[in-house]
Amino acid sequence: MKPRISMITLGTRDLERAARFYEQGLGLPRLPLQGDVAFFSLNGSWLGLYGWDDLAADAGVAAEGDGFRGVALAHNVESKAEVDRLLSEAVGAGGRLVRPARDTDWGGYSGYFADPDGHLWEIAWNPHMAVGPQDG
Amino acid sequence: MKPRISMITLGTRDLERAARFYEQGLGLPRLPLQGDVAFFSLNGSWLGLYGWDDLAADAGVAAEGDGFRGVALAHNVESKAEVDRLLSEAVGAGGRLVRPARDTDWGGYSGYFADPDGHLWEIAWNPHMAVGPQDG
Repeated sequence: MKPRISMITLGTRDLERAARFYEQGLGLPRLPLQGDVAFFSLNGSWLGLYGWDDLAADAGVAAEGDGFRGVALAHNVESKAEVDRLLSEAVGAGGRLVRPARDTDWGGYSGYFADPDGHLWEIAWNPHMAVGPQDG
Repeated sequence: MKPRISMITLGTRDLERAARFYEQGLGLPRLPLQGDVAFFSLNGSWLGLYGWDDLAADAGVAAEGDGFRGVALAHNVESKAEVDRLLSEAVGAGGRLVRPARDTDWGGYSGYFADPDGHLWEIAWNPHMAVGPQDG
């Protein structure tokens, strides 16, 4: 396998609500595709939104699921202030603050929000290393 | 928010098993960090592995969870044959074939496997567009 994740697809119970959260709320660049999916072309892996039941059916698994999903997406930023700002932005856009930002035991600073479908995002500042694809 | 996913962190019940699956089994490039995490630097978002309960605790949520997680990671390739080859490779490395590869209604070809912790990966060939970060 080549070292590449092409897309992260999140199941949603309301595609328009989820697409609005990421496009208008967080300002991510949505691709002009019509239909029952929404794609965002990111500097890193693409983000896809697709119906929760449709995604389960596509994978051939039952759609029922509860509780912790064992997955978190991270968005790293350049400062503590930017962590605070982005968490506020996400909450203002319809996300839910799951864990307020705090200093971490590894010397950084981070907090978590959940998107309207409960998918977890960590907003993190890491003073030790550059994580993930770098911009520009 | 800038258009960037820095890292996708997957919770695991057995860090060494999961790291072996991705490093030796699938050949992803692991970063030389010690401790209770494993990081893979990909051409796209990084992949992180962290204890299931630790990840839940980091997010401040209960660790219990069952069933469909509403998330799938996609790895797109250049041909149908490559889809088949990678699904076989994943199964040989300790993954589970969840949905055998087949022609899709959107004109592509894809199948799904689950990693040793049940996280879903789609291996896909899409003849219509280049999805995600491009190599090289």
